[in-house]
Amino acid sequence: MTEFRHVGIVAKRDDAAVLTTVERLARYLLNRGLSILPDAIAAPVTPAAPISRAEMGPQCDLCIVVGGDGTLLDAGRYMAPHDVPIVGVNRGRLGFMVDVSPDDMSARLDEILDGQGIREDRLMIEGHPDVQGDPIKRFLALNDVVVRNRAFARLLEFDTRINGEFVTRHRADGIVISTPTGSTAYALSSGGPIVHTGIDALTLVPICPHTLSDRPLVINANSELEVVVHGDNTEALVTWDGQVSHPLAGGDRIRIRASDKRLTLIHPPGYDYFHILRSKLHWGRGQA
Amino acid sequence: MTEFRHVGIVAKRDDAAVLTTVERLARYLLNRGLSILPDAIAAPVTPAAPISRAEMGPQCDLCIVVGGDGTLLDAGRYMAPHDVPIVGVNRGRLGFMVDVSPDDMSARLDEILDGQGIREDRLMIEGHPDVQGDPIKRFLALNDVVVRNRAFARLLEFDTRINGEFVTRHRADGIVISTPTGSTAYALSSGGPIVHTGIDALTLVPICPHTLSDRPLVINANSELEVVVHGDNTEALVTWDGQVSHPLAGGDRIRIRASDKRLTLIHPPGYDYFHILRSKLHWGRGQA
Amino acid sequence: MTEFRHVGIVAKRDDAAVLTTVERLARYLLNRGLSILPDAIAAPVTPAAPISRAEMGPQCDLCIVVGGDGTLLDAGRYMAPHDVPIVGVNRGRLGFMVDVSPDDMSARLDEILDGQGIREDRLMIEGHPDVQGDPIKRFLALNDVVVRNRAFARLLEFDTRINGEFVTRHRADGIVISTPTGSTAYALSSGGPIVHTGIDALTLVPICPHTLSDRPLVINANSELEVVVHGDNTEALVTWDGQVSHPLAGGDRIRIRASDKRLTLIHPPGYDYFHILRSKLHWGRGQA
Amino acid sequence: MTEFRHVGIVAKRDDAAVLTTVERLARYLLNRGLSILPDAIAAPVTPAAPISRAEMGPQCDLCIVVGGDGTLLDAGRYMAPHDVPIVGVNRGRLGFMVDVSPDDMSARLDEILDGQGIREDRLMIEGHPDVQGDPIKRFLALNDVVVRNRAFARLLEFDTRINGEFVTRHRADGIVISTPTGSTAYALSSGGPIVHTGIDALTLVPICPHTLSDRPLVINANSELEVVVHGDNTEALVTWDGQVSHPLAGGDRIRIRASDKRLTLIHPPGYDYFHILRSKLHWGRGQA
Repeated sequence: MTEFRHVGIVAKRDDAAVLTTVERLARYLLNRGLSILPDAIAAPVTPAAPISRAEMGPQCDLCIVVGGDGTLLDAGRYMAPHDVPIVGVNRGRLGFMVDVSPDDMSARLDEILDGQGIREDRLMIEGHPDVQGDPIKRFLALNDVVVRNRAFARLLEFDTRINGEFVTRHRADGIVISTPTGSTAYALSSGGPIVHTGIDALTLVPICPHTLSDRPLVINANSELEVVVHGDNTEALVTWDGQVSHPLAGGDRIRIRASDKRLTLIHPPGYDYFHILRSKLHWGRGQA
Repeated sequence: MTEFRHVGIVAKRDDAAVLTTVERLARYLLNRGLSILPDAIAAPVTPAAPISRAEMGPQCDLCIVVGGDGTLLDAGRYMAPHDVPIVGVNRGRLGFMVDVSPDDMSARLDEILDGQGIREDRLMIEGHPDVQGDPIKRFLALNDVVVRNRAFARLLEFDTRINGEFVTRHRADGIVISTPTGSTAYALSSGGPIVHTGIDALTLVPICPHTLSDRPLVINANSELEVVVHGDNTEALVTWDGQVSHPLAGGDRIRIRASDKRLTLIHPPGYDYFHILRSKLHWGRGQA
Repeated sequence: MTEFRHVGIVAKRDDAAVLTTVERLARYLLNRGLSILPDAIAAPVTPAAPISRAEMGPQCDLCIVVGGDGTLLDAGRYMAPHDVPIVGVNRGRLGFMVDVSPDDMSARLDEILDGQGIREDRLMIEGHPDVQGDPIKRFLALNDVVVRNRAFARLLEFDTRINGEFVTRHRADGIVISTPTGSTAYALSSGGPIVHTGIDALTLVPICPHTLSDRPLVINANSELEVVVHGDNTEALVTWDGQVSHPLAGGDRIRIRASDKRLTLIHPPGYDYFHILRSKLHWGRGQA
Repeated sequence: MTEFRHVGIVAKRDDAAVLTTVERLARYLLNRGLSILPDAIAAPVTPAAPISRAEMGPQCDLCIVVGGDGTLLDAGRYMAPHDVPIVGVNRGRLGFMVDVSPDDMSARLDEILDGQGIREDRLMIEGHPDVQGDPIKRFLALNDVVVRNRAFARLLEFDTRINGEFVTRHRADGIVISTPTGSTAYALSSGGPIVHTGIDALTLVPICPHTLSDRPLVINANSELEVVVHGDNTEALVTWDGQVSHPLAGGDRIRIRASDKRLTLIHPPGYDYFHILRSKLHWGRGQA
């Protein structure tokens, strides 16, 4: 018996191998007597009707993502508000979050459905934009919020404030505000540290800063952070999780803080955060 | 009236300007009717007899350091076990921790002694060495613990473990394990992030790692961290706060965790952490 | 007597202090019996008629720029093809290239016009685009050529080739190809080294690369370098000297090599490259 | 027929697989009618008497190194003064310089002995110490010269000068002065760029500098560079190629410049510098 009765299925787009796995997955779940709620990409290879990701959250008690970390990121923003945990099945290559291999998917799902999975809550951040143009609603991100200039004149001037205190006026390509989950994504490419998912921290990583001592800053996740864009002719953009964007003008501001909602990941038994880091970052393979 | 009756004075060595300030400081404190306990460096310019730093802790209820951040670091390891708060008077140039200027020392100390100072508790770490050679006792550090090879064959092999879990086998010059306070010291030179003093985090910064993806790692300060040195002919050294060292041999291990003791700093009213960062790191002065 | 008879004047836009200096400069040059050719920004505060930057090159034998390094960059692309040397007058604050202070401008120009200036030839690069859309002509850059994705989906895939040999497939925000002059500009913010202007080198600096070992690469300036953009939906942009841009599509390629033309800078006597580095980069001011 | 009649053999110490390869190598060379001159490590598995590395240089016209890049580094300092080219046979894993695999050693050596190898001259640097203590002779390095503090008080103060011009006063753990060959060794771990072996450049890489803008500097290899150590109680050390060291005291200076001698490497046909970089640095394997 399992606590999970209704299982959403979210699939990566345009990937034949993913569909093969989804087909097997659907059969497996139906054989176990569970109901499935596939998204529009997954549905055609299952007997079930498609459901939108927005409707999936309120109706399922587990979501299985088949694809890469990016697919899980997208699903996470829909599931977290409804406290639906996510299991990630990869495409044969370990991801930071999609850690069930299609090769032993049935065995791992047996364990997870039997309650032997390892639950882990991941910090999410929410952004509250205060902008002059088209209003944008508050948004949720599992990895990061990026404010960046998209114009060819790349330099952006912006201020940061933490709990109302002025930090500094930055001159840079932009800034990444990252959760621990996002610390191994764009924030890492921009020079940020790896932040263990077991600490409630936000990291601010300036992108290509003009001032070389404008270094990554790690703060308590219970802080309220504000980014204020300067300049008349800026073509700044705010982007969350690398997937959704909105233009910003001079004077626009984004307030960012930890969300009350966390995303619950369910890992297979034996989950080892450092094993994944070693694998993904080629640690211990020698170099130079 | 002040809660502080007995005030220890710790002075930087070999610095005439420091002694001039200590002389003024002693007169000021005596005029306020307080008793003073100067260390061996400070005593000659005061009417009081010298006292060792080890004896100072149990006998005073405030310690005033005159000098640089290094002087405060040293005093901190003696004061924290006795819960004695520290005020830092600099030599005319702002430090990260010594933030009272000698120019307005009396006014700032009036405020602090009258209870208007801003108290801030700083995380300290303690090291538990498990070594084959001369036994070393557990030690306390406010900034960092560094394990490094001092030999000309600089490369050191060592493992890190967090809460018993293997992180990786590093090949590097060494590693810095830093508190938030230490994040703006050697850890920053080694490529680590700035970690706000308001978060209970430890940062592991490999020094000149062989593997380029062996990046700084930020973890929860309630973790237990272990560094295990490898190799037969190593000439490794463990150093805390850049001030005290002990040799390590292959197989030796250091366990590091947050201490129950914290160091209390008392800042003058108006203390602004980010102002100090901006000043020390030349932020906002333009470049390139 | 001076070898320079006809002096072009290029001024920074929208800067009242610059115009005050230009006015003094024009009077000084006319008093020395030289003819002046001011650009449209400078002309209104001089008795001479304006001339476009394109026409200025063939007609003058010296160009004086009043403004910042950016103003000189722009003038340099017009002057180098005509072998017209440039002197840079700053706005009261040393630039990397504009190194005559308005305070002692007359004394410095006396020396320079009397032949005591220090001539220095700066490597320039030229780009040969091979694109599918609007054709773009070969272009000239003094600082750098940047290929970057401007879209919110920041990641760009591109190959680099050197003298026909495949280097690697990069996944990054983009890449900076920099001259020694440009090494202290955007390339430095992106993590590149400082390259002394006395070496004929090109530096390739990936911007926020996905692979952490995708590090800056310094090559001989007599190499031919090629950047080939991948991907169907890319919104890549090639920009030279941060001032002129053109969109690129998947499959487009840019060939870059050292130009036959160099830009001649004339520095005042006593010019000291390292003094400028120390000043601009705040070396020796202490930190941490 | 080959131009090489007398072939030195240099072997890595304490490595059984290396000796197996040496045995095969010796038989191969003798079968081709060449004379062999093995070093003390190689000799026991060959019919020939051992010869010291110092005597080997004047007597052979080719040197084959069996081992890793470190073994070749050491041999290189002995062979370069006598213009003896080197071929490197690895232990089954590609090195930056040892690029013949033991698996197809005979085929590759056939090609090389038949004159189809690719010759490449590598820049070497020589150091001229001017020290107060035990005199040290001028030395030769293929990778790098490192000046570093070995004491637990890690910080070293030193000046750099280029062609007599003062660069800056550094406060750092030390400095690496690297050839292009050495740019993928310790210099890379310390934050330096990759410098293509086709450019005559020296790179200065400060190790863990106090000032964050004290960045790697690339200069023309025809420059004369000077490092001057400061401080009374320093325990600095100069080390070349990570293999030979000498203590330095305050006031001691090292002058470094490109050597007239270069080391000739002979690569098998098809040698591809970028292929080796891609392989050693895990480029293109994905990450994050």
